[in-house]
Amino acid sequence: MRAAPLYETPIAADWIDYNGHLRDAYYGLILSLATDALMDRLGLDAPYRERTRCTLYTVEMHIHYLREVRQSDVVVVSAAILGNDAKRIHAALRLVCAGQTDPAATAEIMLLHIEQGDTPATAPFPAPILRAIEQFRTQWGGPIAGPGSRRMELRSRT
Amino acid sequence: MRAAPLYETPIAADWIDYNGHLRDAYYGLILSLATDALMDRLGLDAPYRERTRCTLYTVEMHIHYLREVRQSDVVVVSAAILGNDAKRIHAALRLVCAGQTDPAATAEIMLLHIEQGDTPATAPFPAPILRAIEQFRTQWGGPIAGPGSRRMELRSRT
Repeated sequence: MRAAPLYETPIAADWIDYNGHLRDAYYGLILSLATDALMDRLGLDAPYRERTRCTLYTVEMHIHYLREVRQSDVVVVSAAILGNDAKRIHAALRLVCAGQTDPAATAEIMLLHIEQGDTPATAPFPAPILRAIEQFRTQWGGPIAGPGSRRMELRSRT
Repeated sequence: MRAAPLYETPIAADWIDYNGHLRDAYYGLILSLATDALMDRLGLDAPYRERTRCTLYTVEMHIHYLREVRQSDVVVVSAAILGNDAKRIHAALRLVCAGQTDPAATAEIMLLHIEQGDTPATAPFPAPILRAIEQFRTQWGGPIAGPGSRRMELRSRT
């Protein structure tokens, strides 16, 4: 998978939990802020959202937590687009601590294009946005690297 | 699925994003705090963690975002245990806005029992904890309600 580095952040002190490492939910916050950066990159930025009343809603997210992240770490999130249709983007995210190569987390998200109004409704991407998505997907995509989305289950139970 | 109500919270102002609703990552934070409440219920509480140096690490999480949550909402999280083995708990979480019946989000998580030391290592649950997990699972479990964990993919692509 070719993934574009999109977002970098240090770790805030209040993101560390009683286990002495980054709380699971704050991996999610970092991935969410990286998704905002992906939206900016695709033209789904604040001016677009104001002009069109359209935005993306996250409808599903899967995260694999692979390594602990410490307060001293700086993390970089890269993104790839695995698939899209007229209204949806299926993206893969990869969170890596600066100076390391193996990811601390991998995630997949499904994003849905919504026109917000009195009643939010799905809406097709405008043609220029769809082109941007498909160009990004051509450049930054390919088979998923690392563990991907799957049905969660315990095969062996005591 | 029978799920035990474990955690309730109002929505903090800074959890609302530019879409005017609860940012996806803060559903995750609420679910994470509810998981802490589940740990307390099972005896994996702060005194246990201090005494044994053992805790739970989240290794995987899947969330379905089903409804928007507003700042005026109060949300309640219920939990069920779908499966366990000697070291792992597979739990289902359900986040419902007070006064509603359909969930705003459903999630599944896989939790792994870890002894923290110089090198964190998996560890089996002590017998009393395992009994508490299995008792909880007997009382609060059963087939998953609502959309469950699955492989994420777009079947139709343009």
